[in-house]
Amino acid sequence: MLLTELERFIEEDLGYDDVSCNMIPDCRVHAEVIAKEFGIIAGLFEATQIFEYFEIFPTTDFEEGDLVQENEIIFNLDGGARSILKAERLALNFLGRMSGIATLTRQYVERAAGPGIAGTRKTTPGFRKFEKKGILAGGGDPHRFNLSDAIMIKDNHIAVLGLEKAIMSAKKMASFTRKIEVEVETVDDAVHAAKMGVDIIMFDNMTVNEIQKAIKILNEKGLRDNIILEASGGISIENVDKYGKTGVDVISVGAITHSSNWLDISLRILPDITKE
Amino acid sequence: MLLTELERFIEEDLGYDDVSCNMIPDCRVHAEVIAKEFGIIAGLFEATQIFEYFEIFPTTDFEEGDLVQENEIIFNLDGGARSILKAERLALNFLGRMSGIATLTRQYVERAAGPGIAGTRKTTPGFRKFEKKGILAGGGDPHRFNLSDAIMIKDNHIAVLGLEKAIMSAKKMASFTRKIEVEVETVDDAVHAAKMGVDIIMFDNMTVNEIQKAIKILNEKGLRDNIILEASGGISIENVDKYGKTGVDVISVGAITHSSNWLDISLRILPDITKE
Amino acid sequence: MLLTELERFIEEDLGYDDVSCNMIPDCRVHAEVIAKEFGIIAGLFEATQIFEYFEIFPTTDFEEGDLVQENEIIFNLDGGARSILKAERLALNFLGRMSGIATLTRQYVERAAGPGIAGTRKTTPGFRKFEKKGILAGGGDPHRFNLSDAIMIKDNHIAVLGLEKAIMSAKKMASFTRKIEVEVETVDDAVHAAKMGVDIIMFDNMTVNEIQKAIKILNEKGLRDNIILEASGGISIENVDKYGKTGVDVISVGAITHSSNWLDISLRILPDITKE
Amino acid sequence: MLLTELERFIEEDLGYDDVSCNMIPDCRVHAEVIAKEFGIIAGLFEATQIFEYFEIFPTTDFEEGDLVQENEIIFNLDGGARSILKAERLALNFLGRMSGIATLTRQYVERAAGPGIAGTRKTTPGFRKFEKKGILAGGGDPHRFNLSDAIMIKDNHIAVLGLEKAIMSAKKMASFTRKIEVEVETVDDAVHAAKMGVDIIMFDNMTVNEIQKAIKILNEKGLRDNIILEASGGISIENVDKYGKTGVDVISVGAITHSSNWLDISLRILPDITKE
Amino acid sequence: MLLTELERFIEEDLGYDDVSCNMIPDCRVHAEVIAKEFGIIAGLFEATQIFEYFEIFPTTDFEEGDLVQENEIIFNLDGGARSILKAERLALNFLGRMSGIATLTRQYVERAAGPGIAGTRKTTPGFRKFEKKGILAGGGDPHRFNLSDAIMIKDNHIAVLGLEKAIMSAKKMASFTRKIEVEVETVDDAVHAAKMGVDIIMFDNMTVNEIQKAIKILNEKGLRDNIILEASGGISIENVDKYGKTGVDVISVGAITHSSNWLDISLRILPDITKE
Amino acid sequence: MLLTELERFIEEDLGYDDVSCNMIPDCRVHAEVIAKEFGIIAGLFEATQIFEYFEIFPTTDFEEGDLVQENEIIFNLDGGARSILKAERLALNFLGRMSGIATLTRQYVERAAGPGIAGTRKTTPGFRKFEKKGILAGGGDPHRFNLSDAIMIKDNHIAVLGLEKAIMSAKKMASFTRKIEVEVETVDDAVHAAKMGVDIIMFDNMTVNEIQKAIKILNEKGLRDNIILEASGGISIENVDKYGKTGVDVISVGAITHSSNWLDISLRILPDITKE
Repeated sequence: MLLTELERFIEEDLGYDDVSCNMIPDCRVHAEVIAKEFGIIAGLFEATQIFEYFEIFPTTDFEEGDLVQENEIIFNLDGGARSILKAERLALNFLGRMSGIATLTRQYVERAAGPGIAGTRKTTPGFRKFEKKGILAGGGDPHRFNLSDAIMIKDNHIAVLGLEKAIMSAKKMASFTRKIEVEVETVDDAVHAAKMGVDIIMFDNMTVNEIQKAIKILNEKGLRDNIILEASGGISIENVDKYGKTGVDVISVGAITHSSNWLDISLRILPDITKE
Repeated sequence: MLLTELERFIEEDLGYDDVSCNMIPDCRVHAEVIAKEFGIIAGLFEATQIFEYFEIFPTTDFEEGDLVQENEIIFNLDGGARSILKAERLALNFLGRMSGIATLTRQYVERAAGPGIAGTRKTTPGFRKFEKKGILAGGGDPHRFNLSDAIMIKDNHIAVLGLEKAIMSAKKMASFTRKIEVEVETVDDAVHAAKMGVDIIMFDNMTVNEIQKAIKILNEKGLRDNIILEASGGISIENVDKYGKTGVDVISVGAITHSSNWLDISLRILPDITKE
Repeated sequence: MLLTELERFIEEDLGYDDVSCNMIPDCRVHAEVIAKEFGIIAGLFEATQIFEYFEIFPTTDFEEGDLVQENEIIFNLDGGARSILKAERLALNFLGRMSGIATLTRQYVERAAGPGIAGTRKTTPGFRKFEKKGILAGGGDPHRFNLSDAIMIKDNHIAVLGLEKAIMSAKKMASFTRKIEVEVETVDDAVHAAKMGVDIIMFDNMTVNEIQKAIKILNEKGLRDNIILEASGGISIENVDKYGKTGVDVISVGAITHSSNWLDISLRILPDITKE
Repeated sequence: MLLTELERFIEEDLGYDDVSCNMIPDCRVHAEVIAKEFGIIAGLFEATQIFEYFEIFPTTDFEEGDLVQENEIIFNLDGGARSILKAERLALNFLGRMSGIATLTRQYVERAAGPGIAGTRKTTPGFRKFEKKGILAGGGDPHRFNLSDAIMIKDNHIAVLGLEKAIMSAKKMASFTRKIEVEVETVDDAVHAAKMGVDIIMFDNMTVNEIQKAIKILNEKGLRDNIILEASGGISIENVDKYGKTGVDVISVGAITHSSNWLDISLRILPDITKE
Repeated sequence: MLLTELERFIEEDLGYDDVSCNMIPDCRVHAEVIAKEFGIIAGLFEATQIFEYFEIFPTTDFEEGDLVQENEIIFNLDGGARSILKAERLALNFLGRMSGIATLTRQYVERAAGPGIAGTRKTTPGFRKFEKKGILAGGGDPHRFNLSDAIMIKDNHIAVLGLEKAIMSAKKMASFTRKIEVEVETVDDAVHAAKMGVDIIMFDNMTVNEIQKAIKILNEKGLRDNIILEASGGISIENVDKYGKTGVDVISVGAITHSSNWLDISLRILPDITKE
Repeated sequence: MLLTELERFIEEDLGYDDVSCNMIPDCRVHAEVIAKEFGIIAGLFEATQIFEYFEIFPTTDFEEGDLVQENEIIFNLDGGARSILKAERLALNFLGRMSGIATLTRQYVERAAGPGIAGTRKTTPGFRKFEKKGILAGGGDPHRFNLSDAIMIKDNHIAVLGLEKAIMSAKKMASFTRKIEVEVETVDDAVHAAKMGVDIIMFDNMTVNEIQKAIKILNEKGLRDNIILEASGGISIENVDKYGKTGVDVISVGAITHSSNWLDISLRILPDITKE
């Protein structure tokens, strides 16, 4: 992350004068960052950067996206107690949030058993970059980052412009470097969009049956090959396996960012046995 | 929120050039922001500010912290389609995240049936201010905002300095305008801290029985009255009622920020029937 | 542009205290922004925003991308002299730079007579967004905005990884929402890349003859249809017509941003004849 | 440049997640930054700073303002391939733009053969500091940086206030640490301004003959010695030699920033022969 | 201080191009930062950070809050002349301002001879953090940092809401982690507020006699023990000893920030005798 | 001031959640900003901007630099109580600090009785712009704003480079738009510098006698006319009249920024008699 971002986050958590850290002698201690539960680890790079800002240089055996067991040590830290305490909460907030997303993403990936799992723009304002990295660590696809890096024609665009006109406009206005994706809610619209040459069709809130039917027709019409198919809407960890069998290429799931719990990770300072 | 913050969030979601919005004629439309499920609404002020940035002036019958039913309309919007679509995702992200926190907080408040429910610093980096407001909307207590606005002596401070020395340092260094809180893990430490005159004692990861025992002893020793008692650690929606009966003043729950799901809220543009 | 950006630009040009503007009575005057030469106008939105910051509300008959004749009035301004003078240079710098890019882009578009003209990342640091808008106003294609919004495998990537490995990595790592483009310098590599299923092939520094040969072979092998072909390198306003006839879809030209002159535009305050 | 500036530029060019760089193994490579054409080099400091941000430490034999020949190596770089590729475009954009300005400035300086060549405020918004440094590298004079660091009475100020009143106001309001410059369009106004004791007179859009006549009269009246004379407006590389012979002290030329082409500079990664 | 803050301060003092520093060869010199008068030193950390930004690593025998004698050397500096000159003014401005505050605070502390001396929010906008640190260095109490880190019911709040209602609102709305302070202007209000259980009472513009009377009554009513008493308003270095004897716990004095003179501190570069 | 600056100041004073303001009903009240002592008013523009940010539109009969009597009303305010209370402290901090500087400056101006009174760079970091405006309001000269807007050769530059070499370097490197000032400590150096053609000579820590002697010699040598003479160092309100009679053009006084007390200004909310 940029230093300017990092300092904004630090300022949020430290305020102007942290008495509870400053009252501590800045003696050298050993500390450990520990997973309190099983999951997929993410945010190692960001946590390291935070510790290093405070001149603590952590060591780790993990890489982004690795599986971590309950009670495993993620980082070993040696350095000033005061510095470790200043970095603690912010580093854990990154690890907890990003690993929580990675862990849920991995669960979806495994249950989907085939198609990719993609995120959405349903992310915490100001923190999207890191939530998308959590998805990546979990084996998912970040999907587009913002409104500018792919053209996505959604229900509300179609409500204003109509499907055909919207696709025509997008094709005319979009840079050749960008893909065009369109949300459809019916089999007919899917076929229509495919004929018009969009790059990606998203089946929006369609049932497993409807999606299977749409794919069958696209296949029959020879339209399946040059198009990416995405399922979205109403998909949960319970039913993602069924969507996984429909033949779509990718399933996008808002829940991996908007409803993932943090992975429980904590830091503990050890009595410094090297002193004896 | 400050305009400088708002623009940072907008830039994140819009990128540099939003073709999918720009391709739409900026015709006047009517739109509604709708709750898709029952919950407590929060983020009305922020969502309004976002819409107003794009010169859309929403109307609402709700106030922060109100209960919203499934399918109720939260905002009515009239204005340019393009502007509404630019504001949509960011406004919904604020509403979804903040209302999700408010809703879970309210559930804890109701089940605790007595003591206050407080947040922690386990918040999304850069978004704490809004997550704390979500807690407030749910009827909770935001707890301290950052390391500077109250002195909190936590397990890791005690590991370095010892309980007694830590309290003495805090009392010496803290401004008279700030409260001193100390985490304890045993009944003895609770009594010790109370005798030393801290303002708040937090029972950290102690069982319901241990807490009850501690309070009994504090009462017997005449130390209960001038102290605020907080329970924290291992508290979930399942057991919060038991902690609520221990006699503590407040229960802090990391889950209300780190494990709350978003409230499902969406925006739909209506066919403009006024045209006919 | 964001207000935070705008203020950064204003601060650069005004410094902390502008005596030459402040010494002027803030009397109401009429002023005109005038094209001193023929060209394509761009930056109208930005110039307007700058004037409005100083509470000057300009009127114009032009739209972005319109042709302007020598001595035509682009904006009419009425308002405080001091405010107009504070806005003048910054507004003209936007108009001059963006219109210069639009004008040169249009010349390339016209001479290419078929394929699109695209920009590159050879832009002034901090000003890319506006230079890309200048390209759009001139009828060109902005190409990708930054390293993140499309995958582009360039000569230096291939030098490190080799062509095949680079394409395979890109396909594995890229989000399904992004296109993959690869630069090739030989006909063989073009065919190879096309077979591997990239979205865009860029003929890098290849002659007109080589490009024609490559396209012929791609056609013969049935690989032409699902691929976008881009020519780049060594293309100038003198030879762009020849590249335009090769059959490529798009020609990217660094010169439209790195070697375009400003359109000559100036502001003059008129003797206020309404006073008499 | 400030780190905060640097990161803004980096963010512009990298976006949030650069797959094309990240897919490359961060193996050690050797690379060269090479001039593709003859010119004056500028931006060495900035390019170095950019590379160093990515922990690449370039070496160079050049100093700011040195002449570089076609195909000469400006920088040698050793370091991680991924880091070099992330820094590449931004570093080249600085070098290309600043060296282009330096090169054109030098050409003007040489043809003017006497008077200094000065820039104007016709610079790219947000990039003025670096464009002024390019002028310096080319042997030119940056002229004032913004509206605050010298008082300049321009045509539009005079249109509002009149020449005499404007000079009087400026003398009254300006700090004693600042020079006062006035634009004149006639010989009479030049004499008038000189009598009033301004520090600099700029002949605005006056012909070579008019300027010569003005200087002759200023000499005759004993007003020449304590005043700096500047020519501006309508001066090009073709006619600058004639203005150079008029006896002015300095010639300001908007073209050196608004119409200079970039110097063609590129970076190539070499096959790492040290591996064998 | 954050690097982003530091760079904002540097930019203010350096502008874009410092000729007077750049014209100096960056030869190694020795320099000293010297107190020109007796006082309490503060800002050592900030001054060090500023020098280090320019790669000058100062040494000092002082700690924050130490007494410094006239002509004592505060810092020894070895390094590039140019760098020292760039850092000079900014470092001295921090030292002079913060030490001036520390020195005046110490004088109040000593004359008060008992109660603490606290600051107010009467600080220079944008510089409060450092002014509060100056108070700390002088042995004072920074008081609350901003409107959010304690609840303070002031005269104007009471004018709107009335004393009782204001206290009730505050108790209801404030987090349990924050203290509530109320300003009173009469003995009756002091008693009333104490009965309502506020944490701090501030005697606002009350005479020594009135304060003594109020404390006597609070004692008689058994309300004194659990409350902190603060005197404020109309207190100067001449009369602070009298307020010190009233029995209040703390005296807040706007003058320590709004009317403290800088400590006179300067930097001198020495002829480099090591060269001989 | 820029909105981005304003919001930084607001954030400093408000923090994230101001309970003491929010607990107040946002009822309409009338309030007055009142001078509690005689002085020169400054900061009216900034205070107005702060109130307007909170949608309070103050009225005033004063202009920057006006004399204000004890108990005179500076601003009348009507608007929401909550908004007024949020703006109060920040607006008063601007008024108090800037007016304090203006008032002290005016005293120096009056006692100097002839030469101008100029400021220095001894200003609060981050607040220089406003402190310089305070000087202007008091009738003083702001002097250069930062290291870039005039060339000033100070004692430490001379220590490194020697007087003659320093002046030669400055003349060679400085833009023709900037003045060159040199500090001298002896009569000989003053003459030397004048002969070399600097624009301003500052007598640094020289006695009244020495300065008179230097001016006499400069006159005798015909060097006085084209040079501005400045006295600086050791000048106080007690002796400024003597320096005023030496014949210098300007006297610079660090004390007007580093040792000026705030003007005492307060805000009071009135019982709203319009309700009856």
